[in-house]
Amino acid sequence: MENLYVIKIGGNIIDDDALLSVFLKKFARIKSKKILVHGGGKQATRLAEKLGIPQQMKDGRRITDAETLKIVTMVYAGYINKIIVAELQSVQCNAMGICGADGNSILAHKREKAGTDFGFAGDIDQVNSAWFKQLLDQGLSPVVSPITHDGRNQLLNTNADTIAQEIAKALSSSFTVTLVYGFEKAGVLLDVEDEKSVIPILQAGYYRQLKQSNNIFAGMIPKLDNAFAAISHGVNQVIIGKGEDLEQLITGASGTTIRHE
Amino acid sequence: MENLYVIKIGGNIIDDDALLSVFLKKFARIKSKKILVHGGGKQATRLAEKLGIPQQMKDGRRITDAETLKIVTMVYAGYINKIIVAELQSVQCNAMGICGADGNSILAHKREKAGTDFGFAGDIDQVNSAWFKQLLDQGLSPVVSPITHDGRNQLLNTNADTIAQEIAKALSSSFTVTLVYGFEKAGVLLDVEDEKSVIPILQAGYYRQLKQSNNIFAGMIPKLDNAFAAISHGVNQVIIGKGEDLEQLITGASGTTIRHE
Repeated sequence: MENLYVIKIGGNIIDDDALLSVFLKKFARIKSKKILVHGGGKQATRLAEKLGIPQQMKDGRRITDAETLKIVTMVYAGYINKIIVAELQSVQCNAMGICGADGNSILAHKREKAGTDFGFAGDIDQVNSAWFKQLLDQGLSPVVSPITHDGRNQLLNTNADTIAQEIAKALSSSFTVTLVYGFEKAGVLLDVEDEKSVIPILQAGYYRQLKQSNNIFAGMIPKLDNAFAAISHGVNQVIIGKGEDLEQLITGASGTTIRHE
Repeated sequence: MENLYVIKIGGNIIDDDALLSVFLKKFARIKSKKILVHGGGKQATRLAEKLGIPQQMKDGRRITDAETLKIVTMVYAGYINKIIVAELQSVQCNAMGICGADGNSILAHKREKAGTDFGFAGDIDQVNSAWFKQLLDQGLSPVVSPITHDGRNQLLNTNADTIAQEIAKALSSSFTVTLVYGFEKAGVLLDVEDEKSVIPILQAGYYRQLKQSNNIFAGMIPKLDNAFAAISHGVNQVIIGKGEDLEQLITGASGTTIRHE
């Protein structure tokens, strides 16, 4: 099967114009089919502050109330998505910015649990893989913002890591998918204080050992559990490392590659 | 050739949730291929005011400076575009929101004239008609926000009337195109004070007469000149009237229809 790269970048790149430029040039140079998923960065929070909209927090999570949803739609699906697309077009990458409502590409439902207010947070029900495949076959590179919809006229704020994972899983029946998580560290570290302690290849058995001996930084565990879940749902490999090192990540020269046993 | 409707709506509908809902339901019911182009409304101005960003005016025109461009990108290409797409999806219309950078759909250049600052205003060079046709052939209805790009990493603010006209012209070699301009009046009025004085059919000869005898409201002349320019560039007909009367506009029961002699 043909290769497909699903690449997620977060705030550390989005909030840094120079780093974003470096990353986008590298993304444009990937010859294989590719999808970019971007998170939000600090711009939505800054805009909310400027507008005097209080950000409700609960157990360390931000609650997406109606006003905040409006802001993240403007900033994520509007500003960030379009500056990325315009910059990719300028380096000969035919990018196509979307949110989950566009082409009904990502259907989600509002997260609900009796007694808990999650605000307008969306959990994904379905990725329209046929449509993503069509865009890719037309030579387009989808650029996906972390806004989905429920099909009943409600936009929803959805975690970008999860969007990348669900797209990667959904497209794994049509492509050999590599899912790349760009973040601020050089990879999964054996010693969180030592950037040079990157684990180059992480397989399920070794991961279990590391977890049992408490040798994995707790903050990494949800990301890694998700990565292994993706692998067990058909994704060929997951690579975690610095987004700006994209070329090295893809060749395995940098970052942590997560594979089957 | 197959019919295509290119329908433009402006602030009077966009700024009124109930009217927008009525319009979108009617848009969704059009069985032919269709493209929606939306302007901006007052929300960008309101956001700029809330953020304390002064709006530079020159000869009655707003100058799109860098901060204003950021705001219109957020509001037009982000918020307005995505609420329209989400609502269309909820009424079984497979909409696809884009700005001119997406899929390199509308290429423009920054308006320049020695000694005059137009800010980041874009004049259209090219509509990617092949790509619009591809989207339409996939059963998608493009929803176009009035933001274009220059292919060199610059987003540009572009008049939505002009975008609708250029799309209509570009697609007239593949479709029998009807261009609909929704605005706040019931059509082109013989007497601007009398909403019942709508001219049902306006042809070039009659238009010339009306202009010569000063019987056309001056504010309508640029819109009508554009409409006749569209007709002479292959567009089959242009209909001007209240956007919320969409069904009647299309059948000719309401509004002003502009056709060849």
